[in-house]
Amino acid sequence: MLGNHRSSLTRLAAGLMLLAGFAQGAAADEGMWLLNSPPKDLLRSKYGFEPSAQWLEHVQKSAVRFSTGGSGSLVSKHGLVLTNHHVGSDMIAKLSTKERDLLTTGFYASTFEQELKCPDLELNILWTIEDVTDRVNAAAGASMAPAEANTARQKAIAQISEEAQQKTGLLPEVVALYQGGKYHLYCYKSYTDVRLVMAPEQQIAFFGGDTDNFEYPRFNLDCSFFRIYEDGKPLQNEHALTWASGSKEGDLALVIGHPGKTNRLNTVAHLEFLRDVDLPMRLENMWRSEIKYQTFCGRSAEAFRIGKDELHGIANGRKALSGMLAGLLDPENMARKAAGEKALRDFVAADADHQKQWGDAWDKIANAEKAREPWALRYRLLNTGLSSDLYHKAREIVRLVVELPKPNADRLREYRDTSLESVYTSLYSPAPIYDALELFKTESSISQLAEAFGADDAAVRIALSGLSPREQAERLVLGCTLKDPEARRKLVESGKEAVWASKDPMIQLAIRMDPEAREIRRKFEDEVEAIERDGYAKIARAKFAMQGETTYPDATFTLRLAFGPIVGYQEEGRPVAPYSTFGGLYERFRDRTGEPGFELPERWIKGEGKLDPKTPFNFVCGADVIGGNSGSPAVNTKGELIGLIFDGNIHSLPGAFIYDGAVNRSVAVDARAIMSVLRNLYDAGRLADEIMGR
Amino acid sequence: MLGNHRSSLTRLAAGLMLLAGFAQGAAADEGMWLLNSPPKDLLRSKYGFEPSAQWLEHVQKSAVRFSTGGSGSLVSKHGLVLTNHHVGSDMIAKLSTKERDLLTTGFYASTFEQELKCPDLELNILWTIEDVTDRVNAAAGASMAPAEANTARQKAIAQISEEAQQKTGLLPEVVALYQGGKYHLYCYKSYTDVRLVMAPEQQIAFFGGDTDNFEYPRFNLDCSFFRIYEDGKPLQNEHALTWASGSKEGDLALVIGHPGKTNRLNTVAHLEFLRDVDLPMRLENMWRSEIKYQTFCGRSAEAFRIGKDELHGIANGRKALSGMLAGLLDPENMARKAAGEKALRDFVAADADHQKQWGDAWDKIANAEKAREPWALRYRLLNTGLSSDLYHKAREIVRLVVELPKPNADRLREYRDTSLESVYTSLYSPAPIYDALELFKTESSISQLAEAFGADDAAVRIALSGLSPREQAERLVLGCTLKDPEARRKLVESGKEAVWASKDPMIQLAIRMDPEAREIRRKFEDEVEAIERDGYAKIARAKFAMQGETTYPDATFTLRLAFGPIVGYQEEGRPVAPYSTFGGLYERFRDRTGEPGFELPERWIKGEGKLDPKTPFNFVCGADVIGGNSGSPAVNTKGELIGLIFDGNIHSLPGAFIYDGAVNRSVAVDARAIMSVLRNLYDAGRLADEIMGR
Repeated sequence: MLGNHRSSLTRLAAGLMLLAGFAQGAAADEGMWLLNSPPKDLLRSKYGFEPSAQWLEHVQKSAVRFSTGGSGSLVSKHGLVLTNHHVGSDMIAKLSTKERDLLTTGFYASTFEQELKCPDLELNILWTIEDVTDRVNAAAGASMAPAEANTARQKAIAQISEEAQQKTGLLPEVVALYQGGKYHLYCYKSYTDVRLVMAPEQQIAFFGGDTDNFEYPRFNLDCSFFRIYEDGKPLQNEHALTWASGSKEGDLALVIGHPGKTNRLNTVAHLEFLRDVDLPMRLENMWRSEIKYQTFCGRSAEAFRIGKDELHGIANGRKALSGMLAGLLDPENMARKAAGEKALRDFVAADADHQKQWGDAWDKIANAEKAREPWALRYRLLNTGLSSDLYHKAREIVRLVVELPKPNADRLREYRDTSLESVYTSLYSPAPIYDALELFKTESSISQLAEAFGADDAAVRIALSGLSPREQAERLVLGCTLKDPEARRKLVESGKEAVWASKDPMIQLAIRMDPEAREIRRKFEDEVEAIERDGYAKIARAKFAMQGETTYPDATFTLRLAFGPIVGYQEEGRPVAPYSTFGGLYERFRDRTGEPGFELPERWIKGEGKLDPKTPFNFVCGADVIGGNSGSPAVNTKGELIGLIFDGNIHSLPGAFIYDGAVNRSVAVDARAIMSVLRNLYDAGRLADEIMGR
Repeated sequence: MLGNHRSSLTRLAAGLMLLAGFAQGAAADEGMWLLNSPPKDLLRSKYGFEPSAQWLEHVQKSAVRFSTGGSGSLVSKHGLVLTNHHVGSDMIAKLSTKERDLLTTGFYASTFEQELKCPDLELNILWTIEDVTDRVNAAAGASMAPAEANTARQKAIAQISEEAQQKTGLLPEVVALYQGGKYHLYCYKSYTDVRLVMAPEQQIAFFGGDTDNFEYPRFNLDCSFFRIYEDGKPLQNEHALTWASGSKEGDLALVIGHPGKTNRLNTVAHLEFLRDVDLPMRLENMWRSEIKYQTFCGRSAEAFRIGKDELHGIANGRKALSGMLAGLLDPENMARKAAGEKALRDFVAADADHQKQWGDAWDKIANAEKAREPWALRYRLLNTGLSSDLYHKAREIVRLVVELPKPNADRLREYRDTSLESVYTSLYSPAPIYDALELFKTESSISQLAEAFGADDAAVRIALSGLSPREQAERLVLGCTLKDPEARRKLVESGKEAVWASKDPMIQLAIRMDPEAREIRRKFEDEVEAIERDGYAKIARAKFAMQGETTYPDATFTLRLAFGPIVGYQEEGRPVAPYSTFGGLYERFRDRTGEPGFELPERWIKGEGKLDPKTPFNFVCGADVIGGNSGSPAVNTKGELIGLIFDGNIHSLPGAFIYDGAVNRSVAVDARAIMSVLRNLYDAGRLADEIMGR
């Protein structure tokens, strides 16, 4: 599965497309385009399609962003939202109990009253877009050093956001596009009363498990339904996607969603940092976490229930990062990157003025990436902190009481007024916190610090406090008072002095660990982020000068339009057909019976006769997607929903930094399959009727 | 499971017991004693048992060492050897085919003719022991630097071994005990015609999987039977253990086996190196390998068949190392170590002569461990080489043709005349080599080098040869001619010039990678091994001066006697009883039905009624064991076999460097359980009768 943006792909540095023309002759289409700057010429010339302003507004206002890192879409006028099961699974897990494991059994609310309120989910719908590039850049004087300029721009952004919120009442977000080549102000309608309507069993949502993940053909019902409520009632929304009657091979699919991060602009030196340092480091962490979670989940049925959703997320991220690393270790990819970079640098060097303005960007970025190698692991582990939920809540409290009294623009950016509702939604969530899981995560992440830096390291000594990782975890978790949301709220409201005087062991640990965490974050922002921002803005301007402003920016977990035909591809010399069917599902089930990941829910085994084996189940299309696009609607030129994106194939993984249209495909659940099983297997007639507008 | 010595624990530096008296008041007994220097006073005073010279000779000559890293024992006068399933599983896997998966189905030969010849197993039986300390030490002049002295001792050892082989026709091995405090010459009877007689299904041998591994109570039939042949006929051996009629709580159990490596002598600085650098590095490798093998095994039923034995080995090693690391991260353990070290250093410092002779040992070792930190990973990965079998065979060929023409004492130690039979047994093994597994291992280990050192590193560039890891693996494996044992033999016999001219891509890669591998090995031997050998010999002498020569040396994968009563222990405040039963197995099976690792073979499900639920299945005893002891017989004071050691409990894992008799227990299959299932479930009357001497 594509994976939630935040869990697997969020921290990869972003970039900009350098590769126009590389997909020549390919069936698929590169690009994650801005909704306010779609590639109209290309769509017209290649597909004879001209999206109108109304068409664009309709799909934009039907698209939904999930705070947990995925995408979705409104599919009825009563706030009904369709997304992937794996985007909703975090909430489905939080709504489960020992007696009611919704991931295993699935869930369906046959009335509004039965819909289950999510503890901490925020959905956003993009409402307006405004270019604020000039105002942001004006804040940074030409004589400022990069770190100073970065801070000045951040303050301007805080100011712009604050004003927008006051003026519109919407949730503002200033997005750096083209790595700082442009700044756009996005304003969202934001909703936090969201309820679970329907989810199938995880086993059919993720049929084939890790083995089939990112492969094709697939047979997955990776969908779930939520509903937005406003003032305690279902949202009455103007825009919602109509369910299409079907699609066929060759049809154009348009994907409206929120791709998380791509790094296609990255310089070669920056890619080498990812290849040689960053990705190996992240993979090490994932291998470790996956084995540790497997061990935890093996302890008992209850441990499996409370740990499996995170285990799935880790395994998915591990497979995604492995594919990206394999792409970076392919010298052909790096040669293409080097050729693109050389062409641009030659263009810049050919003009003395260009060279003076932008010529130093590449070396400065290279130096910054090189300089951070020795502290990259330290930054990652300390900036993240212990992996337990209670530690994160403690650190949030410790930081809030320090940041809130500061002027808005001086705060760490996540504590500015415009972000506080999100912070509180998460911090005061009533979602269950399990001692067993917390003990495991706390022990594991304290041990990880010791493994990384040695038991005598200053930060590790703080984390261990003279105990073994296990003893320290017991002290911290069993003595922690923060399991109660009200206790967390009271501490935040009590202010810094009271928090500092608290006897809670997790609060005290967060207080002691925070200084170095803040220091190394500051170091990262000044010595890496500021240099990258400065350098990539120059590279973007050079790019605009060479090619014009006709390209798309790297993904930023904001709304984009991708598109391409429903078409197969060649793999190891064999053609891969674009559609799979229900019949294919049962065939694969019988081929792999008894193997892990290939179980089918009883409902599906017993219900085989109720399904037409020829019904299309999943399909691939040539739209360019990445993690964060999970749950995106695929629509036809009429704006009708034909599919639900849930994955990319294995060749889409290097798409984080390089695009290969010959084989890169996104994978969707066919809308017809969803409708068929709602009616035939899940007795969800109410839901099907609502979707069909009956 | 304790694990094969070589696969999981072999490379930990060795040490010597510093902790006499720490097990005071504990139920269990510390120590892995030399057979020619057993703790007679302790056995008499605590257990009223005085092993006679005959008793010791009988158990010594009934004990068997497996070249694959485990222990075993002769249990009939016709060469029948009992060991663990997990010690034999490597051979059981090699004897399996796509059509005949002996790990899954189990195996039983009801006639001699049906016994299956192992492709590359060597069994050794210790025949004589001689102290050669003075002769080895005389070779190293007092004025020599450590590296020079180390080389001189190695040459003396080669000379002693060569003479012994010529004189006795036995297989000689000079063992450094007490880290060089003593040198003993061991001579073995060695056998390479070994055949599989009986193995149960892996699922009952490893029931409970990773979850129950190293835990207690256990319910495992972790046994298998092999037979030694000589001149094509079953061995007629004088010594063999008699099967006991039973045992009971409180009985003394004596374990005769080959513990692999312990590090109980290690200085605190050396333990800190293990804790902060070495174990984290090994664990990273294991987490990575385990996930990679899981992925490979998930591809298909056949991939699972050919990969699962190695996967099991990795998972087992990972759990063992995790327990060791947890022990080192327990500050109480380190405080005990520091106190022991201080007492010894104070004793040395109190006497000017002692101080002059031995006083510098601790700091020199500390400096050597510190200095190796930056190249520890490089040493590990390059010294090991790519993980594929074909690469290892290629490197063996490349090294053999360089080393064989040299004088015996000048060769790398594993190519000296006395070791060549083992080298050839392995190199010319007809065991199957699977392209799919080789491709996977080759790609994975090339990628691992790139992850560790970056794609532009000199060694990595050689490994990649300008291709992606996957392309390079395909070139190396699919183009490799070494799958045929005869091709390997011909290359070795053709000599260096012909090997260097070979067009085999794996041979050419081994030629190109070997110089740095040899260089870093030499660096390790000169800058670490030589310093450790010199320093620990001093520390051992200081120890003898303080306490007398009454202690046991650290484990060296040579024959030892351990002992302790059959007795339970306390865990999290609850008593753990020493015996489990068949009834307990079925109870646990029903509790965990459907969970991975808890499947039971059909034979056991259907055969429940044929077994007495009260029959003891596994038991724990207080004998001090470690990896390598797997398959050791546990005997009573009459020398009769009462159990088969297959594991230690979770508290035995820090036993690699510190012993805690209150909770450290070894785990055995009860001899009665084996006899019961041979007759009642496996229709193995022939085998049972042979064991009972009928």
